[in-house]
Order: sequence, then structure tokens, then C-alpha cells
Amino acid sequence: MKLDSLSFARRFDHVSGSAIREIFKVIAQPGMISFAGGNPSLSALPDEQVAVLAQEALSASGKALLQYGATEGYPPFVESLRGYLREHLGLDVPAMLPVTGSTQAMDLLCKALINPGDRIVVENPSFLGNLQCMKLYEAELVPVRSDGDGLDPDHLEQLFREVHPKMLYTIPTFQNPTGRTLSLERRKRVAELANQYGVVVAEDDPYRDLRYRGTDLPPIKTFDKEGWVVFLGSFSKVISPGLRVGYLAGDAGIVRKCTIGKQSSDVHTANLNQAIVDLYLRKNLLPDHIRRISSDYALQCDRMLSHLAAFPDGVSYTKPEGGLFLWAELPEGVSAVELLKKAIEKKVAFVPGTHFFADGGHENTLRLNFSASTPAQIDQGMDTLRSLISGELH
Amino acid sequence: MKLDSLSFARRFDHVSGSAIREIFKVIAQPGMISFAGGNPSLSALPDEQVAVLAQEALSASGKALLQYGATEGYPPFVESLRGYLREHLGLDVPAMLPVTGSTQAMDLLCKALINPGDRIVVENPSFLGNLQCMKLYEAELVPVRSDGDGLDPDHLEQLFREVHPKMLYTIPTFQNPTGRTLSLERRKRVAELANQYGVVVAEDDPYRDLRYRGTDLPPIKTFDKEGWVVFLGSFSKVISPGLRVGYLAGDAGIVRKCTIGKQSSDVHTANLNQAIVDLYLRKNLLPDHIRRISSDYALQCDRMLSHLAAFPDGVSYTKPEGGLFLWAELPEGVSAVELLKKAIEKKVAFVPGTHFFADGGHENTLRLNFSASTPAQIDQGMDTLRSLISGELH
Repeated sequence: MKLDSLSFARRFDHVSGSAIREIFKVIAQPGMISFAGGNPSLSALPDEQVAVLAQEALSASGKALLQYGATEGYPPFVESLRGYLREHLGLDVPAMLPVTGSTQAMDLLCKALINPGDRIVVENPSFLGNLQCMKLYEAELVPVRSDGDGLDPDHLEQLFREVHPKMLYTIPTFQNPTGRTLSLERRKRVAELANQYGVVVAEDDPYRDLRYRGTDLPPIKTFDKEGWVVFLGSFSKVISPGLRVGYLAGDAGIVRKCTIGKQSSDVHTANLNQAIVDLYLRKNLLPDHIRRISSDYALQCDRMLSHLAAFPDGVSYTKPEGGLFLWAELPEGVSAVELLKKAIEKKVAFVPGTHFFADGGHENTLRLNFSASTPAQIDQGMDTLRSLISGELH
Repeated sequence: MKLDSLSFARRFDHVSGSAIREIFKVIAQPGMISFAGGNPSLSALPDEQVAVLAQEALSASGKALLQYGATEGYPPFVESLRGYLREHLGLDVPAMLPVTGSTQAMDLLCKALINPGDRIVVENPSFLGNLQCMKLYEAELVPVRSDGDGLDPDHLEQLFREVHPKMLYTIPTFQNPTGRTLSLERRKRVAELANQYGVVVAEDDPYRDLRYRGTDLPPIKTFDKEGWVVFLGSFSKVISPGLRVGYLAGDAGIVRKCTIGKQSSDVHTANLNQAIVDLYLRKNLLPDHIRRISSDYALQCDRMLSHLAAFPDGVSYTKPEGGLFLWAELPEGVSAVELLKKAIEKKVAFVPGTHFFADGGHENTLRLNFSASTPAQIDQGMDTLRSLISGELH
């Protein structure tokens, strides 16, 4: 029998692969200036520190690190993670699970909770990798309105009442893709609503340490009384994405179900990778490192903003207090998808905003990453975009 | 609202967590002799080599390894893997995907192919981690009969005809848990039947390099004409399970769908881990290492077999040509679950066979791992088991 008679699982019916991952292949071309990824800058990646820590970990515990580990995580890492969450985030949670990047945290949470047809409220736009995850669990995505202070709690309450969602997926701090941050009052309100209506909140917070102005805000999880909020954390943006180390933290019953799910996802997160991050935390290397990379990223962010200020009238954009992304809106009728084609010919890449909307549309929007480009690249790339957009408008 | 009103996803209705993973916690007690896991022996774990290779990889390409990688894999590793498959296994496949341990390969294959209610034919007993995986995809597991030469192709054909399964899951070489190997003739026949009836074969082959007697047999995949067979490989048993590096290899369309699934499972397998295995292959360190560990494991296997020969009448057991496991059957009515409780009091652990059967039962069976114990531990542990079993029979 020919293989073309093979049918794939229904969960793929409306999923064709991450647009960002495809754009990654294009931006690998030499000479490309990329505002597309969510990559740390190369200079922000602590390769020399990691080489030293890897050596230290392997010398001290090589056999244990190469052996099978517990699904529940490498015990020293779980311990240092507990201290980190308490001291750094004010979180004292019943249970934690180290995972293979926080993308896996979202996957496991959906595995634990989502039946086909369950509704998940999402910001619109939101992180497309996790939108794809939720679609593969055949969830029905319900967009909640948002503004400059993040998602709108009144609309959220209306949705909680009317559509009875199983979960809210939110990126409260320096949101991907918009760069917006949920205000303190709204954080409290989201926790209250989740507790009142019995909706799980997946609080995805990988960017929070990259703050360039303003003051830190506590996680939604700190206002959670009954345990409905699950905090998803990552070391990808502050240490290394290539190591694939993240975690989820929250109620013991939910974490236990995610742990059982993880047994057949990948058994456990690689021990060496957990040990490297463990030593990074234990030696307290993170604060200095974050200070150094934040000061670079702040300059890059400001540089990109100063270019946007000179863009043609009718182009609007966010002014984030941290994170990796700016979000721009072109005049109605100008397509960022078409703009991308022309930009790539001129060796500049970004992600059209339409990919971040659960139901598409919004072709006049785009996401711009500033962390992975040098100031000179930002100058050159933004000049190119400005002249292309000006051309569209004349 | 109290959190106890939360309901988990239906896929967990019949899954309570891997018994092996739970037993792992018990065997972590000091002084325990464990025949329970599928762990390599500590002396088989090349910690000094890995430390050197990690350093080499991080010195040469530290920034690239710490940055995001492609879901499709770290390019040098994909290249060396291609060479390894061709030279070592006689496999020239259209596509490959590095994964986070071959457990993830099975997870992604189910994600790509399995709808709830789809039937998957499984050996009975089979590897319980992957049984749990298939149950979480709500597959209906259909057991195929087997004997000393592996699964019975006549029964397989009957099942292909009668129940129209979507997939066959098989561990053809030194099967987990029985240690049995599918004969050459049956390998050809399985490939033919899969091609004839249009059934995907998940050929899970992590133990094949650990052969202590007899001659190597080609993978089922080498007899596959149309691409129905997907080969799942692992470096866990021959280099390190803690690094979590495996792969799947087969038809480009199937591998592509698994790649899209992997985008939202964990984005990509950690680059450093792929780079370490890449260098291990590239420097051709594997043949010597396999020779060394196989010679130890062969002695351990023979030692355990010689003890079993002195067990009471009515105890039967397999005599595998390689791998990590022996399988024993106690006289009808003697429960290995009860035996385990007594054995643990005497500091000896194993896995009761019942956990490996899709529908339970077979309480008189047990799996014995010989790779993780020294000859002295095997002597002591097997003496304990013999005297406990003799006690049961008198």
C-alpha cells in the first residue's frame, strides 16, 4: 500500500507549523538583519561561564548526571529553584517541576487539563508557539480584549461567565508579541476572577527579569488564594535558550499530573542542563548577568524606538518597559506580509503580526525584536523598513 | 472556588503514572540492590569522555550551542547521525529528527498519527513507559501473541485484517521486558505485512548494540519498501540516558509532522547534548565503548542466568542474546507483586511483570535487570530472591 494513503491525527487539521520556526530558516542566510526571532543577543549568552560550570558539574557528579534522573527533577536544582522563587519572585509554591524549556510547561499543562473543545482564553495577539500548542490539544481559543495595561479584566469576567473556559493563557510581563505589561491592579483582579470562577491561569512569565525602566510587579500567582494559577518560568531569556531549562510551579495536584505526563513526554529534563542552571543560581551569577544584558538591551530598545519615532505618520507602536519585543501597527491596508517579502530581499526580517492572532487578520501589524541585533544593525534595518513603508504609502 | 473542583483531562482516566518511575524512588534507598531499572551500570557511563567532549563543543561553538537551535536538529549531529545510520545499521532514510530521548520519538509519533480510539498492536508484555504514552493518546491497545522468536506474524496478520490498527509498536531486539529478539524471517514478514495492510510500524530499537552472543540482525526498516516503518533510536543505553538524546528516522512526511509536533513539545533538543553525541560519533568512540560495556554486561547476564538455573523447579526464564533484561515466570499462583514487598524489606528490587501487560494480569512474572548491578550484588540479590521464592513454594 502506498504511504500517501496514511492519514495524520485530527489535531493537525488546523496546524501547519510555526511561522517563526520557518522564518528562522530564512534568517539563517548570511548578512540578514533579523528582527524576527526572540533570540538573546550572542553577546548575552554566557558561554564561558557555562563551560566552567559544565566542567564543575561533570567533575563533581559526572556519573549521576549521565545516569537516568527522576522525572521530578535533579534534586539540587529543585532546591536552588525553590530558593530562587522565594527570594526573587516572592513565590512560595507547594510544588515545582523542572521542564525542557517552558514550552514544555505549557504542553504538559494542556496535557493535564485540556480535552478537545475546551475553551482557553488567550490574549489577542499572543505567543504563536503556545497558540500552536493549544490548537494541537484541540482547544477552542477565545480572545480577550487588551489595551496598554494588558488584558481587560472586565471583558475577562464576561468571558469567564459566558463561555466557561477551562484556562486563561497570559503573558503578563513584556508580553510576546506586544511588549505590554499587565498592571498591578489587573494582576490582583485576574487572580481573584480565576479563584472566583474556577479557571486555571497559565501565567507565562519568561521576560520579567529583563526590565529597563519602571518597577517590578509581583506575579499574578502571588495573589492566588486557592491554587488556580500555575506559574511557567524559563531560563531561556536570561541564561540560554539552547540549554532548554524551564519549570512550572503551583498546586501539588496539578504539578503531579504534569509530572505523570512528562514521564512519557521525555522521562526527565537532561541532568547536565539542570546542573548547569543549578550552579548558575547557587553561585548567584544571575543578578550581575541580568544587569549586564539588560543594560545592553535597554540601549537596543531605545535605539529601535528612536527610529520608529521617525516613521511615517499613521504608524503606531508600543513602548515596552522591558522584554525583547516592540509591536507596530501600519496604516490600515498596508500588509506586513507583503512588506516582509520586500524586506527579506533587502536582508531585513521580522514576523508579520497576523501569525500571533488566534484567528489571523490584522495584516497591518508586525513584531520587532531588538535583542538579537547590534545598534548598527538596528540602524540599518530600521532605515530599510522606514523607506519600504514610506514607499508603500506613496 | 476550591481547587478540588478542578477536573483533569480524560486522557488521564486510566493512567496513574509509571510503576517503574515510582519504584525508582524506592531503589534510591542506600544499600538497595536494584534489578528494577533499565539503567546502564555506573561504570558504563563515559563521564570523563563526556566532560572532554562538552568542553570541546563549548570552546568551538559555545555561542551557537547556547542560542536557540532548529527544531530539525543541530546540523552537525544530523550529519553524523546520517553517516551512523548508513554505516552502522544499513539504513538510508529520507529524513531524521533528533529528539529528547527516544521516549519523545514515541510521543511525537503518537501525536502525529493517533486519534482517540485508534488501535495500536503491542507486544504483550511491552515497555510500560510507551504503553503509558499510547494510553495518554487514548489509543486502544491490541496485544499480539509472541514466543521465543518475538511476535507471531500470523497472529499479527490476523489482527491487521480484523481490527485495522493504525500502528504496530514493537521492540524487535532484546525486547523490554522479555529480552527476546525477533528472528530475521519475521522481520521481513513484519515489514511486508505493514506495507501490505498500510500499518505504521514504530520500530523501537534502543538495545540493539548491546549484543553478547549470536549475530546482528538488520532492522525491520531495512525491509520496508513504501515507508511505513519508522525507526526509533536512542543513545541512552550506549552513551548516557541522562543526556536525553535519541532520534526518529523514516519517511519525510511522517518526520515533518513529528517536527511540527515537536515545535510545541520542547522547540528543539538541547544543542549541547546533541553536540556531545555528535562528537562521540564523529570521533568514532562508540565501537570501543560498546565493546567494553558489552563485555561487562555479558558477564553480568551470565551470572544472573547461572543463579536462575539454581532456582526452584517451576521457575522459567528467558536467555537473551543481549540487552539489559531477563524475564522470569514463577509457578502459577505465586505473586511477584507480593514477592517485591518482601524483597524490598531485604533490600532487593525488581519490577513485577504485571505492569508490562496492556491489561495487567500475569502476576507471576517479573523483569530482572542485570546491567546496573555488580557481580557481587547479583550474587547477593539473586540468593535473596531464590530463598524468598523457595519460601513461597513450601
